[in-house]
Amino acid sequence: MGGRGPSQAGIRVDAARNRNRLLEAALELVAADGADALTMDDLASRARVGKGTVFRRFGSRAGLMQALLDHAEQGFQTAFLLGPPPLGPGAPARDRLHAFGLARLVALKVTGELARAADVDPGTRYQHPSRSLARRHLAGLLRLSGPVPDPELAAYQLTAFLDAGLLLHLHGEEGMSLHRLEKGWEDLVDAVTRYGSP
Amino acid sequence: MGGRGPSQAGIRVDAARNRNRLLEAALELVAADGADALTMDDLASRARVGKGTVFRRFGSRAGLMQALLDHAEQGFQTAFLLGPPPLGPGAPARDRLHAFGLARLVALKVTGELARAADVDPGTRYQHPSRSLARRHLAGLLRLSGPVPDPELAAYQLTAFLDAGLLLHLHGEEGMSLHRLEKGWEDLVDAVTRYGSP
Repeated sequence: MGGRGPSQAGIRVDAARNRNRLLEAALELVAADGADALTMDDLASRARVGKGTVFRRFGSRAGLMQALLDHAEQGFQTAFLLGPPPLGPGAPARDRLHAFGLARLVALKVTGELARAADVDPGTRYQHPSRSLARRHLAGLLRLSGPVPDPELAAYQLTAFLDAGLLLHLHGEEGMSLHRLEKGWEDLVDAVTRYGSP
Repeated sequence: MGGRGPSQAGIRVDAARNRNRLLEAALELVAADGADALTMDDLASRARVGKGTVFRRFGSRAGLMQALLDHAEQGFQTAFLLGPPPLGPGAPARDRLHAFGLARLVALKVTGELARAADVDPGTRYQHPSRSLARRHLAGLLRLSGPVPDPELAAYQLTAFLDAGLLLHLHGEEGMSLHRLEKGWEDLVDAVTRYGSP
């Protein structure tokens, strides 16, 4: 406290900056070679810090993956909660639903790889805070967009299709184009929101 | 060959019988206590064979889970391909789609536990032969049931909701009743097959 405050605050700002620098370097490596290829050694040498620094900051490779996913998810959350339309507020609900999946698909290579790599425990995969926020967002848009009988469950049905592992499988192994997956998302949204329409 | 044939055939029939007896005993244990509680020791003592016999036959606990899943899936496949309507042939396509998900939900406790326990490698979860047969079956029914723009992709969207891990999470942790999940399945089928209807 007192006279030492400013310097402690300075240390915290430096630590946050260093952490962001490490996360950005790691995202570049994942974008280039995929999450499976990312090692703590590569990250340390890319960011020009000691390997010990990387381990001190993230604990383990799994901890790093989770931190990367949180970092990428925060950017996506800011975009759908506060960003420009049609993903953010200001567009009709169905357009925002369309934009949600399209944004996910555009980010598939990086965030998809991360989500898959971090998704090691099936018991917790539906409980990650970012997933629960995304589902509540979708359920809210579904309520606004049409006579959807069970918006909360329909949000699970929509996000089940946006599962990173499934999309990477459809794109990578099944050879479905991103365009086809985008169309498939829009079709699904339209089907679910038109339920019961005359 | 020759004179030894009948006795070798007899040995094969005995081996198949013993294997089925072990699988049925394992299914009873899973139905009672869940897949996570099933051990090779429990199975050996339930089926009154040595532990070595269980390991010789299934290789590992993961091998046993996969064998159990195959055994349960074969029964389900027979039912949707050859069994009585509405799950089997003879009912309208949309009724068969409804029945498919309801049968999955009824079997959730046993096959869901097995699928989750066997689903350890996310890289192969969409490629299991039984899943691919089920998806082709659903895609065929979707083609018959309405103007579905991309039946192959829609079959993936439907089966993504029937993922055992997701259903167990919704039923167990989220406390959604089986009745609500059944209704959610029927709503999803109706939405997808009514796409583009006037």
